Amino acid sequence: MNYKELYNNILKKKSFLCIGLDTNPALIPDFLSESDYPLFEFNKAIIDATSAFAVAYKPNLAFYEALGYRGWMQLEMTVEYIRSKDPSLFIIADAKRGDIGNTAERYAVAFFERMDCDAVTLAPYMGKDSVAPFLKFSGHWAVVLALTSNPSAEDFETLVTLEESSFFLNGGAQEQTGLSSKQVAPLFRRVIETAMSWGTQDNTMFVVGATRPEKLAEIREYCPNHFFLVPGVGAQGGSLKEVVKYGMNSSCGLLVNISRDIIFAWKKEKSGFSEQNYAQAAAVAAEAVALEMKNYL
Amino acid sequence: MNYKELYNNILKKKSFLCIGLDTNPALIPDFLSESDYPLFEFNKAIIDATSAFAVAYKPNLAFYEALGYRGWMQLEMTVEYIRSKDPSLFIIADAKRGDIGNTAERYAVAFFERMDCDAVTLAPYMGKDSVAPFLKFSGHWAVVLALTSNPSAEDFETLVTLEESSFFLNGGAQEQTGLSSKQVAPLFRRVIETAMSWGTQDNTMFVVGATRPEKLAEIREYCPNHFFLVPGVGAQGGSLKEVVKYGMNSSCGLLVNISRDIIFAWKKEKSGFSEQNYAQAAAVAAEAVALEMKNYL
Repeated sequence: MNYKELYNNILKKKSFLCIGLDTNPALIPDFLSESDYPLFEFNKAIIDATSAFAVAYKPNLAFYEALGYRGWMQLEMTVEYIRSKDPSLFIIADAKRGDIGNTAERYAVAFFERMDCDAVTLAPYMGKDSVAPFLKFSGHWAVVLALTSNPSAEDFETLVTLEESSFFLNGGAQEQTGLSSKQVAPLFRRVIETAMSWGTQDNTMFVVGATRPEKLAEIREYCPNHFFLVPGVGAQGGSLKEVVKYGMNSSCGLLVNISRDIIFAWKKEKSGFSEQNYAQAAAVAAEAVALEMKNYL
Repeated sequence: MNYKELYNNILKKKSFLCIGLDTNPALIPDFLSESDYPLFEFNKAIIDATSAFAVAYKPNLAFYEALGYRGWMQLEMTVEYIRSKDPSLFIIADAKRGDIGNTAERYAVAFFERMDCDAVTLAPYMGKDSVAPFLKFSGHWAVVLALTSNPSAEDFETLVTLEESSFFLNGGAQEQTGLSSKQVAPLFRRVIETAMSWGTQDNTMFVVGATRPEKLAEIREYCPNHFFLVPGVGAQGGSLKEVVKYGMNSSCGLLVNISRDIIFAWKKEKSGFSEQNYAQAAAVAAEAVALEMKNYL
């Protein structure tokens, strides 16, 4: 899927909702534990109930890997089911991978060939080697972490960095004068601007959290066209309205991810749904988000 | 396993060799393809042949994940086999994970509970949230990426960073004077110094590549005690002698990883080994490294 196709799917569905399949076995209904594949059974019902309201699904690999190979098997079954349900659904493996070239290439095979995912989330720490192999798979996407939604994003992502040319690493430069904003930038900006040069808007998007909406406007100044995958709306406290206000572009440019608030909607206080009706609860929650999104498009 | 136990195992084995199980199915002997579990069969023979010369094994997850759930199954079989072969062997899941807290906790369960690994490699980009959950598992280790061995490590890891207090992010500070070396540091130093404060030398080590040995000496100045996992010797061109010269401390403080040069040793020109004798070739290669290591201890 390319940039234009993704935008067209958003227009068709009138939604830019990505549903996060953070399928924690401790949180799914008890009666599913009798199934041979409880994570898959849960996901299948959620997908059936919500696929009319979503353009994308994002299985979070940790929740499958914690069950070992049987978890991985249910991840594969889930991806296959999403694809068969609606070929236009965009599937993001939320894997946060990142390794040297020959290893990154094997991860790309895992997600793009062995499984039929459209995209995979990647940690940029190790640089181009860890992202470029994914860009060789035509029609597939690297979703690069930029400014994430978690509190400790400030440990490193927002550190002020200098362009090497503006500082003498091995010298004793004690004086820096007249640094321009291009020479001085937070790490996440450096990541975005550098990764933009590795690929195109057809194969690269960035993770920008909803918990710092004002940063979205800043980022749009130097990254106007790329899609952003935006986590943090819902359980983590971000606001959809603010995300749209600061982050939307003329091709939407947003996939807003919601996980727990949709897939575990029946658990919410006063949800009015029982465990038996978990999928229906998810549908109601997803539809409400999609209706809000429709107004913004 | 804690710091002292790891050092004692190194003294007992007279080796600080970690063997990387980058078991690429395209590179293993053809005759193994008839097996139901070719990666496991390959690893088993390699482990049998080399465990006398190694203190650690490091399966690289990409090579298993590229085969889907059957690959993950063989990863689990491999970890179980290493543990049964010699309980003192240190097992590192080379997974480069890194995610928000509730997700990181599930990865820790995957590697430390579901599988019996001692350690897992982690990407630090998202900060403390993505590492701390692993440190709650007593006797287990977070192996945090610092300065990696790949060429593009210089994209971000070596960027010069400023302490936030020394720069006004939203101001127009055009003049910086008298920056101290603590205020100005490359990103990898910031990662090491920050991550040192999250855990202890009993549960945290750092990945520092062998391809920049002079940096090891620099890093030892501010990180004298922690173990370093050192990739890049062998196929990537790093020298064991240099790594020891610049990186060893009084408790060894090094796990030097070699992957392809050992597990695929029979493929080397003039190796003198046939495909049938791949395990014997690996043993000879591992023993040669261990003999060199013995001299350094």
